[in-house]
Amino acid sequence: MLEPRIIKALEEIVGDKNVSTEKADLICYSYDATQQKFLPGVVVHPGSTEEISRIMQLANAERIPVFPRGAGSGFTGGSLPTKGGIVLTTERMDQILEIDQENLVAVVQPGVVTEAFQQAVEKVGLFYPPDPASLKFSTLGGNVAECAGGPRCVKYGVTKDYILGLEVVTPTGDVITTGGPTMKGVVGYDLTKLMCGSEGTLGIISRIVIKLLPLPEAKKTMLVLFDSIDGAAQAVSAIIAHKIIPTTLEFMDGRTIDCVRQATSLQVPEAARAVLIIEVDGDREFLDKQARRIAEIIAPLGVVETRIAETPAESEALWQIRRSVSASLRKVNPDKFNEDICVPRSKVPEMIRRIDAIAEKYAIPIVNFGHAGDGNIHVNIMIDKKVEGELEKAEKAIEEVFKGALALGGTMSGEHGVGIAKAPYIPLEITEQSAAYMKAIKKALDPNNILNPGKIFLDN
Amino acid sequence: MLEPRIIKALEEIVGDKNVSTEKADLICYSYDATQQKFLPGVVVHPGSTEEISRIMQLANAERIPVFPRGAGSGFTGGSLPTKGGIVLTTERMDQILEIDQENLVAVVQPGVVTEAFQQAVEKVGLFYPPDPASLKFSTLGGNVAECAGGPRCVKYGVTKDYILGLEVVTPTGDVITTGGPTMKGVVGYDLTKLMCGSEGTLGIISRIVIKLLPLPEAKKTMLVLFDSIDGAAQAVSAIIAHKIIPTTLEFMDGRTIDCVRQATSLQVPEAARAVLIIEVDGDREFLDKQARRIAEIIAPLGVVETRIAETPAESEALWQIRRSVSASLRKVNPDKFNEDICVPRSKVPEMIRRIDAIAEKYAIPIVNFGHAGDGNIHVNIMIDKKVEGELEKAEKAIEEVFKGALALGGTMSGEHGVGIAKAPYIPLEITEQSAAYMKAIKKALDPNNILNPGKIFLDN
Repeated sequence: MLEPRIIKALEEIVGDKNVSTEKADLICYSYDATQQKFLPGVVVHPGSTEEISRIMQLANAERIPVFPRGAGSGFTGGSLPTKGGIVLTTERMDQILEIDQENLVAVVQPGVVTEAFQQAVEKVGLFYPPDPASLKFSTLGGNVAECAGGPRCVKYGVTKDYILGLEVVTPTGDVITTGGPTMKGVVGYDLTKLMCGSEGTLGIISRIVIKLLPLPEAKKTMLVLFDSIDGAAQAVSAIIAHKIIPTTLEFMDGRTIDCVRQATSLQVPEAARAVLIIEVDGDREFLDKQARRIAEIIAPLGVVETRIAETPAESEALWQIRRSVSASLRKVNPDKFNEDICVPRSKVPEMIRRIDAIAEKYAIPIVNFGHAGDGNIHVNIMIDKKVEGELEKAEKAIEEVFKGALALGGTMSGEHGVGIAKAPYIPLEITEQSAAYMKAIKKALDPNNILNPGKIFLDN
Repeated sequence: MLEPRIIKALEEIVGDKNVSTEKADLICYSYDATQQKFLPGVVVHPGSTEEISRIMQLANAERIPVFPRGAGSGFTGGSLPTKGGIVLTTERMDQILEIDQENLVAVVQPGVVTEAFQQAVEKVGLFYPPDPASLKFSTLGGNVAECAGGPRCVKYGVTKDYILGLEVVTPTGDVITTGGPTMKGVVGYDLTKLMCGSEGTLGIISRIVIKLLPLPEAKKTMLVLFDSIDGAAQAVSAIIAHKIIPTTLEFMDGRTIDCVRQATSLQVPEAARAVLIIEVDGDREFLDKQARRIAEIIAPLGVVETRIAETPAESEALWQIRRSVSASLRKVNPDKFNEDICVPRSKVPEMIRRIDAIAEKYAIPIVNFGHAGDGNIHVNIMIDKKVEGELEKAEKAIEEVFKGALALGGTMSGEHGVGIAKAPYIPLEITEQSAAYMKAIKKALDPNNILNPGKIFLDN
């Protein structure tokens, strides 16, 4: 519990109704998508940059940890108040401040929900590509803090690639701006990209300057069933080798197909051991030709069946198989560890084989799908925590999955970040020397270790 | 002069023939494209990461400043040995280590010349887009350190967008790797992008992991003459609004055209007060249609003449007008300050008007061309340093140009960096608080201030 005078000081900054110590409220802000729970001492809802700055100044003076939070949809516990203290939510700061149609730049507050922003820019013919699965509720501030990805990243890049500038409240409460509305800029160190993916440990994002693209005229969806994961992986490489970068190249492995087949009425032939959902976008009249070219290119690679959508409704039907995965998995086992390793694209089949071997070794179902074009595999380790020993087995399996990805030149996380969930595994990927440099940066910016302490590096 | 024991220690690290204190050699490494000169105490040519590491350890132990250098083609003095000490060149580390055609990733040493690398990847159907004007001699290590740009950046982005990972020798001599060969990765802070554009002040780049694209099948060049800079600027916005992002959107203002007309035999009608060179790339059969669409879109915007190249030779002829600019300028005045401000695209005409007013105020010719699609204007302030008072006038004019760009939401530099040339103007763009954070990062990584001291921030 925080002392009453601290609560009073916070109320003076943001107003009584924007500070809560009610048990019910604290519980609401105690968890995220990891389903771990840590109760904060207080939840504060600032309405302005100035208020965030004053909260950080108070927190530094009183040495109270602050945990910034968007929508709490993260998969690695980046927003969890692991040391109590203050949860600082950006929910009230949810305004789209500007959409500059001439320069293809938008300025937003951090609490804007990703999908709401996408719809707003699409209404005027513009396009914000990053599309994390959480986009219906995740906020742009959270997306920037985690450097969110999504299916479209194979063609369009990740959140970081669209962030031109930021206003940031530093861990000590200063307000700085980084970057700006220009397409280029090389004056001073790139604090913008440093903040992207720093998981709320180096600053609180209070305003975001976003680069937009023209909205593609149309898109076309294909669903291709392969007789092996190798065929699907070769198809990905072959398409790109033919100078086509599709908007999405989503894959599902054989185990995922089995889950979907068991749990739904979707028709998937037994011979299908891998699925690719391929979407291309651009000039309408060019798309039919591209879809035909793709079908030709991949034909020799063990294709069981190709379905090409001719209408938006047909496209939606093809995506149904992908969208049914989450619900299907729940029928396998109640608890899920959702990892998101990333390997060089060509290593996907080898990685899937390694994961299959790990699943067999520990007798745990592991189901894989994700972004084949990026080599970004969502590894779903399905257990029942109530069964004794399952959790321990899962933890061992996860470590082996990470080691396998790293051995293939990959990374433990393509999109989800480290937070607390992957922090224990950090030494597998980041050498002590690299970690020392990262911690030195954290210490330089946050000398009192107030902002989101214990994240990424547990000893930070 | 450095003590003989230091020279001896350096010779032990890199071998006798890779250390030079000969006056002629010192002079060769004393200048860059700024034409300022600072004599180093010694020039060292390491051949490996290990050797760079040992040099940095020695330099720290002895408190000798180290100035890393690629080809010395920078425009802002980033590689100049302003405090004597050691010039560390990466010329010997010039190997392309790998071109992974399946994953579209290359690994190179820092001394590889940009154009040589582009040719090597194009030979196997791949593409490295960043194309700084210096590409025939500049090195990839230097390109990364400065975050080089070029005409193609409007479509393809800058150097930073292609750097997936680095091996870096830190200022204290540790060797760390950042990022890796995957398309995504969010584990730990993004030291890769922090190093990009840090102008050799935060680490010495010893290996670079580069993202490649499939080489576009073909390109098509158009040259369009406009009766005003406003028409050209509107054309840029109109093309992008029609969902076409050309590969290049290069512009030249009226004063540039006058210079070219006077100095060459190129035929440019008197009515032309602005030029756009527009290039589109992609699928061959799509390009004719795109060129026609562009011609239609821009027709109402004061077009004096449109020339569309039908062959590579014709394309080369159209580029001739742009390539003749540098030589033409020399006839205006012998000395040139070459700035590269960047403003939001729509502000280009307003910025050109401001520059014209500044040129008139100081009675100095200022000639503008550059990358209109990015709003990145190369501002060439032409003087004769031998004429008394001209240098002072130029300096005042430069400051006014910077202030004008910043007032329009722009930046002092889109591509060239700060180095020492723009360091005195840093307070115009970077607030004291932001600067404090940048300096804190420098200090955290380089506690003895050994690596490229006094760059970007003169007091760093």
